[in-house]
Amino acid sequence: MTADRQNEKRACYAVIFSSVRKNEHHGYDETAAAMETLARTMPGYLGHEAARGSDGFGITVSYWESEDAIANWKRHADHLAAQQRGRKDWYSDYMVRVARVTRSYGMKRA
Amino acid sequence: MTADRQNEKRACYAVIFSSVRKNEHHGYDETAAAMETLARTMPGYLGHEAARGSDGFGITVSYWESEDAIANWKRHADHLAAQQRGRKDWYSDYMVRVARVTRSYGMKRA
Repeated sequence: MTADRQNEKRACYAVIFSSVRKNEHHGYDETAAAMETLARTMPGYLGHEAARGSDGFGITVSYWESEDAIANWKRHADHLAAQQRGRKDWYSDYMVRVARVTRSYGMKRA
Repeated sequence: MTADRQNEKRACYAVIFSSVRKNEHHGYDETAAAMETLARTMPGYLGHEAARGSDGFGITVSYWESEDAIANWKRHADHLAAQQRGRKDWYSDYMVRVARVTRSYGMKRA
C-alpha cells in the first residue's frame, strides 16, 4: 500500500505509528479496515502506507495536511475506541511520532 | 526492530523510506546488513526501525539528530553504491521522505 502519489511535492505532516502485535487477533482486522475507511473521510487526510513483518513488528505512516487534521483524527470517537482496544488487546508495544515532512523524492517504474 | 528508546523525547529528524521489493534478491541481505552496520557509525544516527510484509512492500524509518547528518549519510560512498544498486536491482518503486519529528509518545509494557 502506498501513499497517494499526487501529494509527494506538497509539504505535509506524517504520523509514524510503529507497533508490536500480540497474538490476540480478535476484532483486529475488522477494526483496522474500519479505521482505514474512516480515515479516508477525515478532513486533511492525504494517504497512508503500512507494512508488517512476520515477526509482528509493523509501521504505518499516515499523511495529513496539518497538525490540526491529525489532532482531529486522533480524537474521533470511533478512533478513540480503537486506540483503547489496541492498547488493551492488540499491541504489546507501540510508538507514535508526529513529523513535518520537509522534502520527498522517489522512483516509480513505468 | 525498534528505534532507540532513549531518543523518544528529543526532537529529531526521520527518513521514511518506503519501497517495493522486486524478486531479485542477489546481494540484498548482505548489503542491507552492511548499511545497517555502517549507519550506526555515522555521526548523528539515533536509531531505526523497519518492517516488510509478504507482499514485498516495506517501510524503514531512520532517525537522525539533524538534516546535516542525513545529508552526510546520503552521500557516503558505500551508501551511494547501495542506493544505485537498489534502484537498478532491488526496488520496483520507492519513496524517501525527510521529516522533522515534532512530538512522540507511546507505550511499552513491562
